[in-house]
Amino acid sequence: MTSHISPAVAAVDWGTSHFRIWLLDAAGAVLAERRSAEGLLSVPPQGFAAILENHLAVLQAPAALPVVICGMAGSRQGWVEAPYASAPVALGEVLAGAVRVASSAREIRIVPGIAQHDPDAPDVMRGEETQLAGIAALASGGHLVCMPGTHSKWVEMRDGAVAGFCTWLTGELYSLLSSQSILRHSVTGAGHVSPDAAPFRQACADALAQGGDIGAQLFRIRAAGLLAGLSAQDSAAMLSGLLIGAEVASATRRFAAADKKPVTLVGSAALSPLYRAALELAGHEVRIADGDAAVRTGLFAAARHLGMIESKATA
Amino acid sequence: MTSHISPAVAAVDWGTSHFRIWLLDAAGAVLAERRSAEGLLSVPPQGFAAILENHLAVLQAPAALPVVICGMAGSRQGWVEAPYASAPVALGEVLAGAVRVASSAREIRIVPGIAQHDPDAPDVMRGEETQLAGIAALASGGHLVCMPGTHSKWVEMRDGAVAGFCTWLTGELYSLLSSQSILRHSVTGAGHVSPDAAPFRQACADALAQGGDIGAQLFRIRAAGLLAGLSAQDSAAMLSGLLIGAEVASATRRFAAADKKPVTLVGSAALSPLYRAALELAGHEVRIADGDAAVRTGLFAAARHLGMIESKATA
Repeated sequence: MTSHISPAVAAVDWGTSHFRIWLLDAAGAVLAERRSAEGLLSVPPQGFAAILENHLAVLQAPAALPVVICGMAGSRQGWVEAPYASAPVALGEVLAGAVRVASSAREIRIVPGIAQHDPDAPDVMRGEETQLAGIAALASGGHLVCMPGTHSKWVEMRDGAVAGFCTWLTGELYSLLSSQSILRHSVTGAGHVSPDAAPFRQACADALAQGGDIGAQLFRIRAAGLLAGLSAQDSAAMLSGLLIGAEVASATRRFAAADKKPVTLVGSAALSPLYRAALELAGHEVRIADGDAAVRTGLFAAARHLGMIESKATA
Repeated sequence: MTSHISPAVAAVDWGTSHFRIWLLDAAGAVLAERRSAEGLLSVPPQGFAAILENHLAVLQAPAALPVVICGMAGSRQGWVEAPYASAPVALGEVLAGAVRVASSAREIRIVPGIAQHDPDAPDVMRGEETQLAGIAALASGGHLVCMPGTHSKWVEMRDGAVAGFCTWLTGELYSLLSSQSILRHSVTGAGHVSPDAAPFRQACADALAQGGDIGAQLFRIRAAGLLAGLSAQDSAAMLSGLLIGAEVASATRRFAAADKKPVTLVGSAALSPLYRAALELAGHEVRIADGDAAVRTGLFAAARHLGMIESKATA
């Protein structure tokens, strides 16, 4: 799906378990796209350049096309380490900290992540900072950003700067509990959970009412299966509702000073409806942003910020 | 290690992953003991009788020796189902509900578990009811019992009856998080956690201060490793402290009406010191009972209650 319009930059989201590349024109429009499972965990030593160049060749990208990358490719275990910016930090400053891959003739830059060195609340992100840059235009002033996933991030934004952030293991806990724990007997065979399912909504409400402490609720899913024949579908909805509700309750308390601000939800088509339901049950005003579009827009913003795109084309 | 004194009964704790048998004299003293990994999960279909008789033969038990059993051998997937007693229920009534294994010439009885049919708090136990019978003499009146493990149980006792109970997945969460999650990178290589370790105590205090909501704390273990070089030992202590502290905070709220009562801790040598520290940090008065002794004493009490031991010998 290459185009006759020349690309201005290649934008790459290179995470732990995925690789995505877009060829963008000088206005940021998508000319071509590829996705693969060649995330950090599956890249052989010194294998980053070959993987990237292979995708660029398939897309018939020019030899001089610059490439901007975000995500785990910039971690210590990645291609070239892009040292963390330190929160609180303006997003422009984060983008400006992108490092050059010196071993390549092509201009390739990797956007750094952000570290929070607060000894009471240490935290790190890599990739989400670029999504934040991608939604900066949507959400000015002060607001909260919720980025659901394996490791959900909540970010307090203040006038284009990351004021603070915190990570929840929600997606990973759902995966472990539903596939490895005693609860696997309860949820095996369940399909996609709907945000309208009564057990999902009830479990969200319970988790919110408990202030995020769902310790006493988890085994009830198993017991309700044994004693009352709770179905796999309802069990999965309860587990999802408990974990997402607990995250929302916990994050709402963590960012209590920000709790009257709207929440910008940056997620996937699978997760956003569930998080939206939980956020609305908690009384938050919710704005939705698409996670894929956010990272692509953020990478384009980084390329412009770094002068990688001809200025005449970006006017 | 058989004895010249004749055994009066064989007591068996037959759980999901373990098998334990004791030969007891007419006063409940241990004459001989065997342990194996032949728990429910490893018993072939119709294999229960052969496993039990093999252990009895090795112990040179008489052919007429009665056997009392508790645990998962009485579940639907077990040897003979011993239907749950329904809480609230007196422990004597639970023991009286033991079912006879009709297929055996030997007198064999299996103690039932307890179900809590409350639709807002469904729960089940199998095995712990026998431990409760074993500590009944230690703790009369009203008290809370904490039984740590893979699935920790807290039980509110009132005058020899189980008034209510609730299960936490604490041990299973520790195992999954430390071996399967992102936190495995942080804790791999850690040894036994000490209840005196500062990170354990601090994490317990944090979990208590958060009312059991530790969602925002878990990823900090990983971040502190990346940013501040937190050691594997301190990471494991933090994870243990967060999970045990969260259970104690959650259970203290769940049984709020009982919170001025002492807590009887029925556990193993590995877990009891950690739970004792967390309980004391939460302001509970703690009594310690040994879990092995509790189940053995409870099985002996069941055998007496069921008339399986000659009355002249039990006077």
